[in-house]
Amino acid sequence: MNALLNATHDPQLRSWVASANEAGTDFPIQNLPFGTYSQGPQGARKIGVAIGDKVLDLRAAALVDTGDMNELMAQSPAKLSALRASISQGLAEGSTKQAEWAGFLTSQSEVTLHLPCRIGDYTDFYTGIHHATTVGKLFRPDAPLLPNYKWVPIGYHGRASSIGVSGQTFHRPLGQTKGPNEEVPVLRPTHRLDYELELGVLVGQGNALGEPIAIGQAESHAFGMVLLNDWSARDVQAWEYQPLGPFLAKNFASTISPWIVTLEALAPFRAPFAHPEGDPQPLPYLDSPANRQQGGIGVALEVWLHTQAMRDAGLGPERLSQSNFLDAYWTVAQMLTHHTVNGCNLQPGDLLGSGTLSGPQAEQAGSLLELSLGGKNALKLANGETRTFLEDGDAVILRASCERSGFRRIGFGECRGQVLPARATQ
Amino acid sequence: MNALLNATHDPQLRSWVASANEAGTDFPIQNLPFGTYSQGPQGARKIGVAIGDKVLDLRAAALVDTGDMNELMAQSPAKLSALRASISQGLAEGSTKQAEWAGFLTSQSEVTLHLPCRIGDYTDFYTGIHHATTVGKLFRPDAPLLPNYKWVPIGYHGRASSIGVSGQTFHRPLGQTKGPNEEVPVLRPTHRLDYELELGVLVGQGNALGEPIAIGQAESHAFGMVLLNDWSARDVQAWEYQPLGPFLAKNFASTISPWIVTLEALAPFRAPFAHPEGDPQPLPYLDSPANRQQGGIGVALEVWLHTQAMRDAGLGPERLSQSNFLDAYWTVAQMLTHHTVNGCNLQPGDLLGSGTLSGPQAEQAGSLLELSLGGKNALKLANGETRTFLEDGDAVILRASCERSGFRRIGFGECRGQVLPARATQ
Repeated sequence: MNALLNATHDPQLRSWVASANEAGTDFPIQNLPFGTYSQGPQGARKIGVAIGDKVLDLRAAALVDTGDMNELMAQSPAKLSALRASISQGLAEGSTKQAEWAGFLTSQSEVTLHLPCRIGDYTDFYTGIHHATTVGKLFRPDAPLLPNYKWVPIGYHGRASSIGVSGQTFHRPLGQTKGPNEEVPVLRPTHRLDYELELGVLVGQGNALGEPIAIGQAESHAFGMVLLNDWSARDVQAWEYQPLGPFLAKNFASTISPWIVTLEALAPFRAPFAHPEGDPQPLPYLDSPANRQQGGIGVALEVWLHTQAMRDAGLGPERLSQSNFLDAYWTVAQMLTHHTVNGCNLQPGDLLGSGTLSGPQAEQAGSLLELSLGGKNALKLANGETRTFLEDGDAVILRASCERSGFRRIGFGECRGQVLPARATQ
Repeated sequence: MNALLNATHDPQLRSWVASANEAGTDFPIQNLPFGTYSQGPQGARKIGVAIGDKVLDLRAAALVDTGDMNELMAQSPAKLSALRASISQGLAEGSTKQAEWAGFLTSQSEVTLHLPCRIGDYTDFYTGIHHATTVGKLFRPDAPLLPNYKWVPIGYHGRASSIGVSGQTFHRPLGQTKGPNEEVPVLRPTHRLDYELELGVLVGQGNALGEPIAIGQAESHAFGMVLLNDWSARDVQAWEYQPLGPFLAKNFASTISPWIVTLEALAPFRAPFAHPEGDPQPLPYLDSPANRQQGGIGVALEVWLHTQAMRDAGLGPERLSQSNFLDAYWTVAQMLTHHTVNGCNLQPGDLLGSGTLSGPQAEQAGSLLELSLGGKNALKLANGETRTFLEDGDAVILRASCERSGFRRIGFGECRGQVLPARATQ
């Protein structure tokens, strides 16, 4: 049993909330992810924990004294671990809290889920080496990965204001694009709208400006993880991104899942981490025994597409691909440490995206850009439709879960977003 | 007289605050910039207006009912213009307010100035075409400007958390760098630390996600402007920035001036705007009659260096260069409109940097990278020192002012930051 495990991970634990014991639930008592919700869109914001198909009001249960997730996230890991233990004990079968806490449960289907926290700054990394390689090949067939990739956890700053929670809809963005046969660019709706399958790390405790976080302490600054869809307009990106990186191609919308799965809940799914043989070893500041022994986290990821035609025909969504966070080239600890090595300060609620998490096989790609080979090969869907990029009405659903023999499966819920038609060109 | 002018711009106006009438002041009654201050570092935050060498407490004077600048910034331009008129009238010679308001003034030297507002998102543009050209030449002598430059107001997302107010100090950042003769990168303090001379636009009213701001309305979303020093570690940047742009090379610190000079205060200094003959004309969404007639703003900019040796010898700072915002390739309105054309939402307090504002002459460069030709030609300072890049103890001071015949000169105050030695390598 690894050192990160404790009684809350016991696979035998069952909850008095019956739905938490069902086989398929993402939210058994071993998970206990945090979210922000209200009764109706305008209701007071509350911090809740998902348990089966219910949400527990943590303030009503006298477990927290705030409705502000960022305040909770700023707490020390020891305090948060104690909170998790109290929630686990109170929700466990046989708990004396059952009679009281039963009144603090609401069905998830009856509440409004909000962004789980205020996201001050959003950084997107590029840890998906298979994504970086496949996309690189489209531009540089002979040298898809740039020389820095295996040394630097590449990242860049994203836009925080346009991050929304699962359920987000957005109009197909307009942007300057320039076709290969066009002499001048034109402002028009993107023709190459894509999703990106990512995980996001939400920062807990911050660090002061000028005080780097050493890799040995890095995970104590990670509150938990969510799913992240980094919607991208590939034609806008191609025209605008040199020399300073993506801008309007990304900042029209980004969607995250509402439930923050804590690092503690992910403890059973930790795995050794190493760069492939022959690759450079991480520089000392990015290396530690703990990172080698358990820096990896096994999170199985899926992308599903639900088109308007599928909905009209009463069909469910179709799965487009599957991958795993274990295939990322850098760990959570490495992202946190690299981000602060120059003294940059992180704050509670900051979001660090993993970058697109594609697997090593072509069919494991986390974006349509990859699955369609840059738009050249249309995907054939089961209902007869085809896709190179997203069409109006398409809903994209990201899912994630963690499974390991001897432990209870936990899930992330879903991260859903839908494309609306473009607004009229100005 | 242009349509943007009103009684607050009257050059004959004098204030009963004597220091506001002195010739050299940045803060005559025609300026009235907004800032956030407190009595002592921990005191309650107040909104003030600079007048001569004093600051007026706007809440005490019953001119605002908040200490939160972001709330003020969210007001409509009409309300803000009425507020400005009230402040101007109350501070004008002969005002009946003098006896009462005299008690609401404090010397600027006795207060603590803070960041003027909470900056939610920070975007840095690249409107300094002479900077882009000179820097581009270092990499691509034959084609310094990329094909998109004259079509797209190039910009990227920066880090909001590490923005500080004038007076900011920071340790020389560590980062991965790789010398031309090195086989592998090394984590070490940057050897090529630089400043960047920029102006920043602080957003007033926001726009809803999905609702672009048309160029005709763009300036109604600009609250005002500040000086911005976008400190940069050039060696870190060179190694990390492909393919997603600058990251740790920039996010260790950025410094802005404390006083927000409103767009209304800048009205007398507006100028026609046009791309040089032979260049592409802006696409229709970036073009308007008003932008052509008065999209430019004449802001004279200066960079000063104050080294430890100068301070030790009792010498003042030395001016390194001068430039003007009129040489930028895109206007404030174009930055705001381009940023939102895809539906991206801006919020009160967001910061849009201009990018490095270098003039057309080599000696007008806004960074050491340019002035030293990539580190090849050391600058000789009057005290015998030389510089290619910044050394520990160096303080960089940015200044800006606006002058036009028939109007009162106004200034931005100063934006000062100082380099501390690197912390020990981990």
